[in-house]
Amino acid sequence: MKGKRTDLSGANCGIARSLNVIGDWWSLLIVRDAIRGKQRFGEFQASLGLAKNILTVRLKKLVDNGIMRTVPEHPGSSRKIYVLTEKGASLGVVLIALWQWGEQNCFSAGEFDRVVVDKDSGEPLAVLALATKTGRKVAPGNYTTAAKSEAAGFPKNQIDQFP
Amino acid sequence: MKGKRTDLSGANCGIARSLNVIGDWWSLLIVRDAIRGKQRFGEFQASLGLAKNILTVRLKKLVDNGIMRTVPEHPGSSRKIYVLTEKGASLGVVLIALWQWGEQNCFSAGEFDRVVVDKDSGEPLAVLALATKTGRKVAPGNYTTAAKSEAAGFPKNQIDQFP
Repeated sequence: MKGKRTDLSGANCGIARSLNVIGDWWSLLIVRDAIRGKQRFGEFQASLGLAKNILTVRLKKLVDNGIMRTVPEHPGSSRKIYVLTEKGASLGVVLIALWQWGEQNCFSAGEFDRVVVDKDSGEPLAVLALATKTGRKVAPGNYTTAAKSEAAGFPKNQIDQFP
Repeated sequence: MKGKRTDLSGANCGIARSLNVIGDWWSLLIVRDAIRGKQRFGEFQASLGLAKNILTVRLKKLVDNGIMRTVPEHPGSSRKIYVLTEKGASLGVVLIALWQWGEQNCFSAGEFDRVVVDKDSGEPLAVLALATKTGRKVAPGNYTTAAKSEAAGFPKNQIDQFP
């Protein structure tokens, strides 16, 4: 097992599956940069300080896994740029959860002067917090998993969708 | 740069700082298992299939970074168990964001029969979604960062806390 990456692609856990598809930390930082508007290979390279060959592998995996796609930089151009798919952009929620955890736990007082804002209104984002579907607050470590068919309050019609 | 891990500990980005402190995917899966109630070295090992030496390093890093702490299994016992700190348990939000992304993107229809529920009520958790502090919905990729002093709507008293 040592040194060999365990394949999590068949895991019956949403977290393990996500981690398997995303790849590694660097891949998540590439998604971060893409959300911030970076598109060219050289832009990602300059931002992340990754070796060319490593960045190439990461970008290829992101494209293969449907998180990014390549498009010509201009119509007819042979130069390609990397843009997020909808699936990739939806990782924004994961990134904001990481940002907010980092903001609360990884900076000394007064050290961090950045804030995440809505691109349209410039308004700061609210802190993500766990809650049930009926709005009851849930402490971050106070959850567990259950079979869909057994979960209290899980609508019958949704159970039918997942036989 | 090749093969060498870049130090992100001084990055002016909440995401990079978090990733640096958390460690790697395995560390996040250890936190996942701890939230699910695992405490003993052997329990983590059985769950994750990691070599002993690798798991030892991961657990040590989690303890060093204040995400877990060790306590005697019983009063006076020399055997120690690993429990999450408050900082560690608050990674639950990151884990749920990953779970929900995985649920939506990494399973084929009807494949996934698990759901995350509140431990107390058994009620399923709501899907995490980005919103501004005033409740305006934000699409997952539609955010940017700003200096705290410039962010619209950022309360003056909070700016004063972060000079």
